Amino acid sequence: MSTPTNPLFKRITLIGIGLIGSSLARVIKRDGLAEHICVSTRSEETLNKAIELGLCDSATLDQAEAVKDADLIIICTPLGTYSKVAETIGSHIKPGAIVSDVGSAKKCVFREIAPHLPEGVHLVPGHPVAGTENSGPESGFAELFLDRYFILTPDKDTDQDAVDRVKGLWQAAGMRIETMDADHHDQVLAITSHLPQLIAYSIVDTATQVGDDLQKEIFQYSAGGFRDFTRIAASDPVMWRDIFVENREAVLDILNRFDEDLTALKRAIRQGDGEKLQDVFTRTRSARRGIIEANQHLPEDQKV
Amino acid sequence: MSTPTNPLFKRITLIGIGLIGSSLARVIKRDGLAEHICVSTRSEETLNKAIELGLCDSATLDQAEAVKDADLIIICTPLGTYSKVAETIGSHIKPGAIVSDVGSAKKCVFREIAPHLPEGVHLVPGHPVAGTENSGPESGFAELFLDRYFILTPDKDTDQDAVDRVKGLWQAAGMRIETMDADHHDQVLAITSHLPQLIAYSIVDTATQVGDDLQKEIFQYSAGGFRDFTRIAASDPVMWRDIFVENREAVLDILNRFDEDLTALKRAIRQGDGEKLQDVFTRTRSARRGIIEANQHLPEDQKV
Repeated sequence: MSTPTNPLFKRITLIGIGLIGSSLARVIKRDGLAEHICVSTRSEETLNKAIELGLCDSATLDQAEAVKDADLIIICTPLGTYSKVAETIGSHIKPGAIVSDVGSAKKCVFREIAPHLPEGVHLVPGHPVAGTENSGPESGFAELFLDRYFILTPDKDTDQDAVDRVKGLWQAAGMRIETMDADHHDQVLAITSHLPQLIAYSIVDTATQVGDDLQKEIFQYSAGGFRDFTRIAASDPVMWRDIFVENREAVLDILNRFDEDLTALKRAIRQGDGEKLQDVFTRTRSARRGIIEANQHLPEDQKV
Repeated sequence: MSTPTNPLFKRITLIGIGLIGSSLARVIKRDGLAEHICVSTRSEETLNKAIELGLCDSATLDQAEAVKDADLIIICTPLGTYSKVAETIGSHIKPGAIVSDVGSAKKCVFREIAPHLPEGVHLVPGHPVAGTENSGPESGFAELFLDRYFILTPDKDTDQDAVDRVKGLWQAAGMRIETMDADHHDQVLAITSHLPQLIAYSIVDTATQVGDDLQKEIFQYSAGGFRDFTRIAASDPVMWRDIFVENREAVLDILNRFDEDLTALKRAIRQGDGEKLQDVFTRTRSARRGIIEANQHLPEDQKV
C-alpha cells in the first residue's frame, strides 16, 4: 500500500480500469491522493492486470462489495453500462458519498445513474477531455490529464461541497476545470469529439471496403493522410458505440451541418471552383492557430 | 558548393522549393547526388530563403534560365502551375534531359506538361507519398522520404533508362519504389490521401462555422479528437485546391462511396442500432494493423 502524502479522500473506488481509470489510479497512487483505492472490473483478467500493475489497494469483481465504505466512486466503464452499474451499487453506497464518472456524454448520466442512487448520495458527473486511441489498464499514464480540460456538469441541486471535492481531485491530476450544464457539454463535445471520431471510423470503413485488390496499396500509401484516420479509428469500439447511442441527438444535429458543408465542397470540386476551395482551405488554418493558443495542439504522448 | 561523392546527375534543377523540393534538395546536398543543384522559385523571398538554407548551388527567378543545361528537372510547384511552367521551360530544355514532378495527381501531368516538351526530352511523372502539414523551404528535412513509397507513373512510351535514373534518385533518398499507371495512381491516392484531406478540411470548417460563442470551447476541448483534424487541415491551401481540381473525377467517385457509408452510420445512430455501430468500429481496427504491417504507421517526425 502506498503511503498517502496528501489524501483528498479516504477511500476511492474505481468501477472500470481502462485508459482513463488506470491513468487516474496512477495519479492517485503517485501523489497519495487517497488512503485506499479499490478497483472493480467485469473480467477477472482485467482485475488481475490492475493488481499486477499496482493500480489498487484492493480489487474485486463484486461491484456492490467495492463501493461499501467508499467516499468517492468513479464509474469508468462505457456509457451503456451506467444504468446496470448504478442499479447494482446504489443501495450499497454509504450516505454522504460521491458518485462521479468520466463519460463523454453527460445528459445520460442523470437519466441512467441518478434514479438508482439513494438520498444523501451526491451525483457529480464529470468528463476529463483527454485520451489516446489505446484502451485497457496497461495503456494508462499519469500525465494523460496534464493541461487538458475537465468538465463538470452538476445540476442546480448538486451539493457544492461534493462538486469541489471532485474538482480538487482532477486539479491535482493537472487538469483545468470548467463547469457547464450537461446539455451544453453534449453539444460541444458532439462537435469536438464525437463527429471527428465518427468521420474517422466512416472514412476508414469506406477505404477498407473498396475491394480486396486495393487493400495492400491503401496501407502502403497511407502516409498521404489516411494513416492519421486509422489511428483514430483504432479506438475502443464499445466505448464509442455507447457514446453515439447516448448522445445521438447532438451528434445527428452536427452531422447534418457537416453534410451540408461537405456537399458544398463537393459541388465546388465538380464545378472546378478553385476559388471556393481555396477560401475554405485557408480559413480552416485559423482553427489550428486557435488550438495552439489554447495550448491543446500537442498529442498526449508528446506534451510531456 | 558541396563536393559530390556520388553524383547521379550532373545538374538537377528544382522548380519550386516547398516541403518536398527542399527535403529533396537536402538529400541531394547531403549525399552529393548531383554536381550542381539549381533552384527556381516564383518569389524572391522564397529564393533568398533557399540560398540562406544552403539548398542550392545556383538560384534564379527565371525558369527558362534555370533549366538550361539541366539533366534532370523536377517540378515541385502546385499542380495548377504545371501547364504554365512547362510552356515557359519547354523550348529551353536540352535534348535527352528528363522532366519529372512530385505532384499528388498523375494523369494531369500528361495532360498539362507533355504537350509543351520538345522531342527527345523524357517525361517521367512521379509522386513521393510523404508529407507533413507544413509548407515552405524551411519545413523540409532529408528524412521525410525514408521508408515511404515513391510511385512512378511512366506511360508505355517512356524511355526506360530515364525511368531508371529517376528511380535511382528517390531510392537514394530512402524510398521504396512502385510503378503503376497514372489512372490507377489517381484512384488509389483519391482514397488514401485526397478524401481524408477533404474530410479534414470539411470537418474543421463545419466546427469553426457553428458560431462565435462556441469558438473558444471548441479549441479548449479539441483534445477529444478535433485536434488531429486541425493539424491535417492546416496544410497548404493552394496545393490542395489544385489537387481537387485536377483529380476531381476520382475524388468525386470515392466521395460518393463515403457519403453512402456515412449515411448508413447516421441511420444506425438514429435507430440506436448499437450492433451495427460496433461492427463497423471493430472492423476499422484491422486497417490500423495493416498499416503497422506495412510499416507506415509512424508520423514523419517520429519515424527517425
